[in-house]
Amino acid sequence: MTPRPDDTHDPGLESWVPSAQAPATDFPIQNLPHGIFRRRGTGERPRGGIAIGDQILDLAELARRGLFHGAAGRAAEAATATTLNGLLALGRSHWTALRQALSALLREGSEQHRKDPAALAGLLVPQADAEMLLPVAIGDYTDFYASLHHATNVGSMFRPDNPLLPNWKHMPIGYHGRASSVVVSGTPIARPSGQTMADGAESPVYGPTRLLDYELEVGFYVGPGNALGDPVPIGSAGEHVFGFCLVNDWSARDIQKWEYQPLGPFLGKSFATSVSPWIVTADALEPFRIPASPRPAGDPAALPYLHDAGDAARGGVDLTLEVLLLTAGMRAAGHAPHRVSRGSYREMYWTPAQMLAHHSSNGCNLRPGDLLASGTVSGPEPDARGCLLELTWRGRDPIRLPGGESRTFLQEGDEVILRGVCAREGVRGIGFGECRGTVAGP
Amino acid sequence: MTPRPDDTHDPGLESWVPSAQAPATDFPIQNLPHGIFRRRGTGERPRGGIAIGDQILDLAELARRGLFHGAAGRAAEAATATTLNGLLALGRSHWTALRQALSALLREGSEQHRKDPAALAGLLVPQADAEMLLPVAIGDYTDFYASLHHATNVGSMFRPDNPLLPNWKHMPIGYHGRASSVVVSGTPIARPSGQTMADGAESPVYGPTRLLDYELEVGFYVGPGNALGDPVPIGSAGEHVFGFCLVNDWSARDIQKWEYQPLGPFLGKSFATSVSPWIVTADALEPFRIPASPRPAGDPAALPYLHDAGDAARGGVDLTLEVLLLTAGMRAAGHAPHRVSRGSYREMYWTPAQMLAHHSSNGCNLRPGDLLASGTVSGPEPDARGCLLELTWRGRDPIRLPGGESRTFLQEGDEVILRGVCAREGVRGIGFGECRGTVAGP
Repeated sequence: MTPRPDDTHDPGLESWVPSAQAPATDFPIQNLPHGIFRRRGTGERPRGGIAIGDQILDLAELARRGLFHGAAGRAAEAATATTLNGLLALGRSHWTALRQALSALLREGSEQHRKDPAALAGLLVPQADAEMLLPVAIGDYTDFYASLHHATNVGSMFRPDNPLLPNWKHMPIGYHGRASSVVVSGTPIARPSGQTMADGAESPVYGPTRLLDYELEVGFYVGPGNALGDPVPIGSAGEHVFGFCLVNDWSARDIQKWEYQPLGPFLGKSFATSVSPWIVTADALEPFRIPASPRPAGDPAALPYLHDAGDAARGGVDLTLEVLLLTAGMRAAGHAPHRVSRGSYREMYWTPAQMLAHHSSNGCNLRPGDLLASGTVSGPEPDARGCLLELTWRGRDPIRLPGGESRTFLQEGDEVILRGVCAREGVRGIGFGECRGTVAGP
Repeated sequence: MTPRPDDTHDPGLESWVPSAQAPATDFPIQNLPHGIFRRRGTGERPRGGIAIGDQILDLAELARRGLFHGAAGRAAEAATATTLNGLLALGRSHWTALRQALSALLREGSEQHRKDPAALAGLLVPQADAEMLLPVAIGDYTDFYASLHHATNVGSMFRPDNPLLPNWKHMPIGYHGRASSVVVSGTPIARPSGQTMADGAESPVYGPTRLLDYELEVGFYVGPGNALGDPVPIGSAGEHVFGFCLVNDWSARDIQKWEYQPLGPFLGKSFATSVSPWIVTADALEPFRIPASPRPAGDPAALPYLHDAGDAARGGVDLTLEVLLLTAGMRAAGHAPHRVSRGSYREMYWTPAQMLAHHSSNGCNLRPGDLLASGTVSGPEPDARGCLLELTWRGRDPIRLPGGESRTFLQEGDEVILRGVCAREGVRGIGFGECRGTVAGP
């Protein structure tokens, strides 16, 4: 059978779901991101859904009606589970088949919609009525450190004489994060306690962190993965990337500073990591792939196991990222969330494929649903820095907020909102939705 | 109901299983460790079993026959699953009830054995006929660094001017390990490749590690665990420790050395971690609890969140550990495995309860089946060092083996065997069985 030409990105396509036609929606028919949801307050069994405009297409109901067949049908069936791990294990051909079938079903003038529009409307649940859950049971969570600007900025604060270590430009530096405390957007973030050592103090103390920060990151979920001992070549890495999300890697800077040597970040990070509920598929991001960020002159070439011509040509993602802050005071005074930074994932030094290939280069097995995050996305401009540590330069330069407040680090009631949008001339833009979290007391 | 007095440790108890009466067995009736097994080559569904002498008591068959009731029955039922996570979630009262019921069933002269010895014998599967599987689905694996001798030795090699960092005596330093690559004893260990930078070289290279090492560790599995944001106080930590195992944290020293700064160990460790198949329960270890290792004079006191009088009095474990090596050459020449080190877990600076309390002190949630490992167990004596890096002092002092071979690091065909035994005057000794792994080619 000849594969159908992929018209799912055509900018002229519109969905019969009216809200998906709104120019400002993150979720036009060209996007079709995956999540796990249930109607709020119902105690229903969670299941897979697709964001379309301000609605969710219920994949369990779709599968129950047997609307899709073949690979698309099997993929829809897998997405009826309470997590997307089964869908992720199926691999790209199934993901793509499901995307094409969903696009065909949801487009204006689709055969099914012409026949029985009321029946199709019955597949939709308003996002406003839904509770979004963690979309994937994350086996292992790995956090990289792939922004040159972030690594240089933070390195210069923690190790002024040695900001960028000699290994950094030779490999995507990363570490194992904590999978158990990855939570979905909207989960309150309790201020963690921990052990800290004040400058000049004789002894450490245990108590609530005083330097609570966010980190703006982009994560991706692994698809089929690899067997133990069997590295994924960089040229095949794309087959293992299901889709992307926004990640807030909450950080307690004082705990982190005291504990992190010599074995790396631990309790300064493991109290919570938030992810956005919608997974924007690698397929949806195809029109926004760009060349990997060029290496500055004089930088070493990537070793062969980290280099692939295709990845160099199309391994980047043109994704604009924003962080907004809304304090309790601003909320009370009716202020809108205030944008504190704006950057781009296109600036990253290492691509997702390089991270994945490096991760498995020692034979480490990646499993369906593993989460790999980029590390803080910071750009060269001061207002493109992806955490307060950098934005306020360790608290030296407080941020001014509407209503007269200022912040060096986060306070109780502060809500951090991450947003991501892909836009390009001649292409229908898509968005990631939001990743939100509000700081609660200790 | 008055709880039955716990007589499961009585040194006079013997089992009607003849091999459990052998003085040298690791698995007398006082032990009763848990594992997951199936008959080799049958494709049977894995299920829980209890080691007794050279046999395994099949808990699925026991549950099918409805031999236990109440908490013991529920625990046995949970242990019929393909992993022990459900049993671990039940908590100590269920674990203890199951232990008491198993002890009563398996002891010489038990009512059930007198009535129908043939029926009870039908619950046994010879260990020689069984394949042991990973006993737990490990959600997160955390590796500590809790031996002062190990931290000082390794620190002095990697950072001669700064061997023990200032935080080390204030908290159990640890890092997140890789859960996906934890494998059961007997799994071949492929020599990993990775990026390394030779001393004095201009550029790194990618290729098979040349410095493959083992690390002798002791791990424990978490029971019920805690909700996110809700630290486990050190006084309650014992309620969350189901049992202990041997851990071989295989390490590629050249990969580790080049990658580990600033975010800690990653690919130098994540290619494989072996665990012993039998989990020796905390209940079984009760007679071998000893005071926590006294802190050297002048060391700081543990902060209150890491101190508990009961833990100080009984937080240590009197567990003797050995590492044996069997090369392909020794095997061919008929040599027995050669002991290369002998140490004790009693020397550890930090107790399991301190590790668990510290881990959750920031609110990080621990889940049933999480694995926490101690880090390399090294003692003060040169022959009590738990890895080749220390034993050969980074390759300077090769180990001599029977038959004339020597080793600085591991070679293809080398089998590493970890053993652990608890013995005390007036108490029946118990053992951990073995944790084995053989190095295969890259």
